[in-house]
Amino acid sequence: MDLRHYVRDIPDYPKKGITFYDITPILMDPEAFQYAVDQLAEKYKESGATKIVAADARGFIFGAPLALKMGISFVPIRKPGKLPYKNRCVTYDLEYGSDTLCMHVDAIGQDDKVLLIDDLLATGGTAEGMVKLVKEAGGIIVGAGFIIQLGFLDGDKVMKAAGVDHDFLLEIN
Amino acid sequence: MDLRHYVRDIPDYPKKGITFYDITPILMDPEAFQYAVDQLAEKYKESGATKIVAADARGFIFGAPLALKMGISFVPIRKPGKLPYKNRCVTYDLEYGSDTLCMHVDAIGQDDKVLLIDDLLATGGTAEGMVKLVKEAGGIIVGAGFIIQLGFLDGDKVMKAAGVDHDFLLEIN
Repeated sequence: MDLRHYVRDIPDYPKKGITFYDITPILMDPEAFQYAVDQLAEKYKESGATKIVAADARGFIFGAPLALKMGISFVPIRKPGKLPYKNRCVTYDLEYGSDTLCMHVDAIGQDDKVLLIDDLLATGGTAEGMVKLVKEAGGIIVGAGFIIQLGFLDGDKVMKAAGVDHDFLLEIN
Repeated sequence: MDLRHYVRDIPDYPKKGITFYDITPILMDPEAFQYAVDQLAEKYKESGATKIVAADARGFIFGAPLALKMGISFVPIRKPGKLPYKNRCVTYDLEYGSDTLCMHVDAIGQDDKVLLIDDLLATGGTAEGMVKLVKEAGGIIVGAGFIIQLGFLDGDKVMKAAGVDHDFLLEIN
């Protein structure tokens, strides 16, 4: 199955000159959606991961079914103020400005083996923030899986610099 | 399995005097999470639903795996500006003020049979907005499933007034 057929190009979104890659056609097709989750499960079946972390909101759509398929915990990562229990947060630099991501303080423990899942690896900013958050909690990142990697941006380099072995189902160049 | 053991009470969140029911312990326990999804799948196996709609962000966590288990489409509903393709939106009244929810214009077609999924039925405001959005698109709501219903709030009445048959896995009073 070629997932590229299920990714819709949206020109000039969120701003002029940027093309956004819309994954909702994958979700509309149960076979394509199941295929994406199965492919990730296959890649990570020997990873030893005991927890999946995924970021609000598209990461939840792929991370939650994958956690169930792998029979491991699901940990949501969200912006400040969105998770009700005690939060652990990190602030990380972006090209212009910074951003903050949080998770519950009891979500990741010392030496937990953590798989990071998101729909898209673009500049790698969000993924790098998630890595930092998991590591500060004592977790060990055993992999990072994405549906799409944008090959013309620096996400690949950012993941390598962070010492994280990452993978993807579809590269768009 | 008693899901109540996996729901954590957070006093005074998001503001003083309100108790928030945190579902993240369900997600941490693969058996509890799978049980919740399986119970919803069992309830709706004869519903004839062809699409699940769920709202950003906790709704995604339960709605996406349920859609895969049922082999039907998953349609995300989000706040304005979050979905990249052409949007259909509704604005609905809340106790104080109003809110707006959107989906892609091609997400629901005439006479699509739609199952609404969310983690929590509280005042019913968000669920009512979702019902309005689906109906305006021509969809038929065949059910609305929640993990938790707060029995001391009006969600139950609101769903009945909207003509929607709803169900839940756990009632908290």
